[in-house]
Amino acid sequence: MSISLRRARTMIRKAFENARGAEMKPLAAVVLDEGGHIIAFEREDGARPGRFEIAHGKAYGAVMLGMPGSAQMARAEAQAYFIACANGALGGRMVPVPGGVIVRDSKGKILGAVGVSGDTSDNDAAAAKAGIEAAGLTAEI
Amino acid sequence: MSISLRRARTMIRKAFENARGAEMKPLAAVVLDEGGHIIAFEREDGARPGRFEIAHGKAYGAVMLGMPGSAQMARAEAQAYFIACANGALGGRMVPVPGGVIVRDSKGKILGAVGVSGDTSDNDAAAAKAGIEAAGLTAEI
Amino acid sequence: MSISLRRARTMIRKAFENARGAEMKPLAAVVLDEGGHIIAFEREDGARPGRFEIAHGKAYGAVMLGMPGSAQMARAEAQAYFIACANGALGGRMVPVPGGVIVRDSKGKILGAVGVSGDTSDNDAAAAKAGIEAAGLTAEI
Amino acid sequence: MSISLRRARTMIRKAFENARGAEMKPLAAVVLDEGGHIIAFEREDGARPGRFEIAHGKAYGAVMLGMPGSAQMARAEAQAYFIACANGALGGRMVPVPGGVIVRDSKGKILGAVGVSGDTSDNDAAAAKAGIEAAGLTAEI
Repeated sequence: MSISLRRARTMIRKAFENARGAEMKPLAAVVLDEGGHIIAFEREDGARPGRFEIAHGKAYGAVMLGMPGSAQMARAEAQAYFIACANGALGGRMVPVPGGVIVRDSKGKILGAVGVSGDTSDNDAAAAKAGIEAAGLTAEI
Repeated sequence: MSISLRRARTMIRKAFENARGAEMKPLAAVVLDEGGHIIAFEREDGARPGRFEIAHGKAYGAVMLGMPGSAQMARAEAQAYFIACANGALGGRMVPVPGGVIVRDSKGKILGAVGVSGDTSDNDAAAAKAGIEAAGLTAEI
Repeated sequence: MSISLRRARTMIRKAFENARGAEMKPLAAVVLDEGGHIIAFEREDGARPGRFEIAHGKAYGAVMLGMPGSAQMARAEAQAYFIACANGALGGRMVPVPGGVIVRDSKGKILGAVGVSGDTSDNDAAAAKAGIEAAGLTAEI
Repeated sequence: MSISLRRARTMIRKAFENARGAEMKPLAAVVLDEGGHIIAFEREDGARPGRFEIAHGKAYGAVMLGMPGSAQMARAEAQAYFIACANGALGGRMVPVPGGVIVRDSKGKILGAVGVSGDTSDNDAAAAKAGIEAAGLTAEI
């Protein structure tokens, strides 16, 4: 199974709904497939343009390494040079903080990742999780 | 005025509707703002992952230089080194063929660009134009 | 379905067997998954080290754009600046000549690509095709 | 002497056998020659795609500097800026942690390196060592 565009749209809409309900700042949200390629992206009115790159970087590291943002952050705190160098090896495209959330099916298989940026990292991650679960999939935050 | 997320969504949906009506191959479509930054992107199921980069490159050159894809292509045919060097100066992110369509308001001001990739360049441009016009804006193809 | 490591190994071995039977020069062969990521690579003794980058580039463009090497080459002959710019958009990683062969399942779905380099482009493509077919899959050359 | 493809295959297979026996997560393993160029790479089913870049980075730093992953890590702990700058000079391709293992012949000459990624760094290094020794060569871990 792979993430359909229909499901990717649901994830983004529901992430934004969650954010509006919680009075978060304007967000950007991206859905990547299993190979780290973009299926869908949206930036809410008022979100700064660089939020694309941050949201993308959060999701990209998560799906390429199989480590969600929280795990990448823990590793960066413990061993900064490892994350710095992994980032170099992946073309400088990682952003290792919460808000990069892995998407799994009911058997635990990784289908892709959602990346959210715009509010605090923890709020970003909560919005991503809400979107993934609204699409009937499992979030590893 | 700038392109709202709501309008960007309309452009993409209507571009895809146009493509389905014309039995085109699966498409990818991006909407860039007037600074060349992504507002929204969607890739239809079955479109290859690299279609993001191609659709983006078409729209990026169009909005950054104020030349739609057809004009960039004409210039590339007449003066290949100019387009090659402009592309270098723009970080290698141009794709100078039809399918990069400029979005203007009713007074002619450039608001952004739509890039489409997946079918022939001319069909890609037609789908982008249909989307822009469905959102009540003017397309320079 | 995705290409298993077991099947990727078969493709490479059978490509090399085909090449030895046809007295080709030493080859390098790579198998990429549906997202353009490496599953397996081998370089025969005597093949130059840069054959990795060439084999990879052939397969990468094929799977990212859904165009096998022969179609990329035809496009490059007809419209050189398009392929030059598509290559820029894809990070300079395309090599648009035969030897980048798309792998499809029995329903026509793209599962990945095989890239071969070391002999003439046409021989490279023939070896890739032999490997893909020996693994029970369909080659688009 | 250089590492033959036959021996590179043995190293990878035996590294994977060691990992399966120790119930490690799915691994990626690469064998580089003495110039830092890839001879062979395999990614086990279930290993994330970015494991190629990490495995490669571990082996690349090891063979280019003649320092195995453990020595690179010690240096990064003691003198982070040295490793950061060495990495810059090497094109951002180092990953300075265990799992990058130098391959030597019986006289101590460096023939190449093996890089493994997927489980803990120490387990990755143990799998690489097992593969190298199964091929009759000496591992500097």
